[in-house]
Amino acid sequence: MGDERRVRDIGEFGLIALLGEALPADVRSGESLDLGIGDDAAVWTPTPGERVVITTDSLVEEIHFRHDWTDWESLGEKMLAVNISDLAAMGAAPKVAVITLGLRGDERIDDLLALYRGLGGVARRYGMAIAGGDIVRSPAALALHITALGESRGGRVLTRAGARAGDIIGVTGTLGASAAGMRLLALASDDPRRRAATADLLIAAHLRPEPRVAAGAILLKEGARAAMDLSDGLMGDLPKMLAASGVSATLDARRLPVAAAVRALFPDAWLELALRGGEDYELLFTAPPDAWPGIVEAMAGIGVEATAIGEIVPDAGRSTTVEMIEPDGSRHELPVGAFDHFAP
Amino acid sequence: MGDERRVRDIGEFGLIALLGEALPADVRSGESLDLGIGDDAAVWTPTPGERVVITTDSLVEEIHFRHDWTDWESLGEKMLAVNISDLAAMGAAPKVAVITLGLRGDERIDDLLALYRGLGGVARRYGMAIAGGDIVRSPAALALHITALGESRGGRVLTRAGARAGDIIGVTGTLGASAAGMRLLALASDDPRRRAATADLLIAAHLRPEPRVAAGAILLKEGARAAMDLSDGLMGDLPKMLAASGVSATLDARRLPVAAAVRALFPDAWLELALRGGEDYELLFTAPPDAWPGIVEAMAGIGVEATAIGEIVPDAGRSTTVEMIEPDGSRHELPVGAFDHFAP
Repeated sequence: MGDERRVRDIGEFGLIALLGEALPADVRSGESLDLGIGDDAAVWTPTPGERVVITTDSLVEEIHFRHDWTDWESLGEKMLAVNISDLAAMGAAPKVAVITLGLRGDERIDDLLALYRGLGGVARRYGMAIAGGDIVRSPAALALHITALGESRGGRVLTRAGARAGDIIGVTGTLGASAAGMRLLALASDDPRRRAATADLLIAAHLRPEPRVAAGAILLKEGARAAMDLSDGLMGDLPKMLAASGVSATLDARRLPVAAAVRALFPDAWLELALRGGEDYELLFTAPPDAWPGIVEAMAGIGVEATAIGEIVPDAGRSTTVEMIEPDGSRHELPVGAFDHFAP
Repeated sequence: MGDERRVRDIGEFGLIALLGEALPADVRSGESLDLGIGDDAAVWTPTPGERVVITTDSLVEEIHFRHDWTDWESLGEKMLAVNISDLAAMGAAPKVAVITLGLRGDERIDDLLALYRGLGGVARRYGMAIAGGDIVRSPAALALHITALGESRGGRVLTRAGARAGDIIGVTGTLGASAAGMRLLALASDDPRRRAATADLLIAAHLRPEPRVAAGAILLKEGARAAMDLSDGLMGDLPKMLAASGVSATLDARRLPVAAAVRALFPDAWLELALRGGEDYELLFTAPPDAWPGIVEAMAGIGVEATAIGEIVPDAGRSTTVEMIEPDGSRHELPVGAFDHFAP
């Protein structure tokens, strides 16, 4: 059956009350949250001695998601997960989030409650409190904005700027699964690839990415020098790290961790998906060779594979470059660049 | 002359670089900001012993502002000011903000630089750092989202929930000026009221509200018991404080501080503007009678008038009520309620 009411039927203040109730009690309060939803501002006491890590990210309908591809609960999970992923990349512990919903007014209450269930589930899994937010009218498209706060661990964080020549370049998990999942979603539902046994796993990688919080903590502890999360694809994000660190890189295409399902379903496109697909939300990092074995072992302990995919080399000159060792052993410089929402 | 380029001409990453440069250097870095714009997240070290106060607010084109009524620099000022106002209401010190711009792509670069100049000017005035943010495509309307972080003072904050029977109800400044300014903006430019000598002052109150940061600090120090900022109008906001505190109130219409210009230009509507106009961004607060003289004196020291407008009374029963003493001395219960963007 379900509740067929829409936002404009119950109004802003009715909706705020319902959404608050849709969150688990421990997510609404949180042990370090002194004051949650309902006042002019929320109040949070960070752990003494720790720094506060701040990130913000948005998902806009038709730009970042499509309702015919995602259910509302997954959308709620993803909107918080992509913010947590940024905190994970700093080696930080997620703590508090505030949420702004931009709504047209014709959204179904049941759908927004499902969104909040997804959000609340991820918040709970990572020990975060939802401290409130804002609901505004958005004339054309649903828009979801989150600001997430985390804490440093032992006062330290990882940045993009620490990579040094001689470092090994590593990634967690595999690359290209999310982009492959998105391609599968775009296929007709009777396409044989869509019906492959492995398709659901790739689609899940796209709809419900799992932020690498424990992996980020390991990187910080085990001596990684630089880290960032992969949201714009390896060839979009690695150059940002190289530029921030003032170095260049050599990548070995033969060592890129790409799931067998991605290679099998996209035999002509898997390398492109791995290099430029985006939205993997894996961690890209660098570490000196002597720290590498410790990182791999600790990652294995939490069930995460860390793969060496290349090496940091000195900056050749005026700009950072990425040299690729192709599957046939040949070498050439790769064009770099991230997806630009307003690309000229 | 100016720069006629638009967002889609220079792209997301070009815009991020330009906007960063439009901020004063001390706003980009900030003394307590360890890491600013450019990494996965920003890093900030709060003052040891202080709590973190978190608020978020959005302005959406055609809903919260109109380009034919505001210039871009004022819009930048206001978007940060309304967030600072929430921190001020908690008695907190503003520290860090992150900004998300939702853009169509056809915005002029020069306009966005003006927006950031306004933003940067207010940030600097209140000692805030801009720690980065996000730029996303917004299909139909320009949308501006800010999350602002502040700090408690001496570990304490003011909330809405502290009002007690017997407290004096006070407000800073005057009520209704912003709503009067908005009405003036809606008039034809040759309307005699629009051309009144005082019109510009009221329009400025609407376009560039000044958050009451120092006044909030005084309220905390001088023993106010509850505070909130007036964004939805006195009759929208006071009931929220009463409900949070479990009390009722008596207001004296004869004591409402309404600027002479508002009374003169809107002789039939000034009381309605003062009660329900909204966007005053003054502080509404309660204090025990013995704290009142100290508050008034300290406010006078910073050039802010604090006016007693009523009294907190015990909750009559199941729900909070507001009784009004009218200009003729008669008493009656007032309908309460805030503006609801999705009102049924």
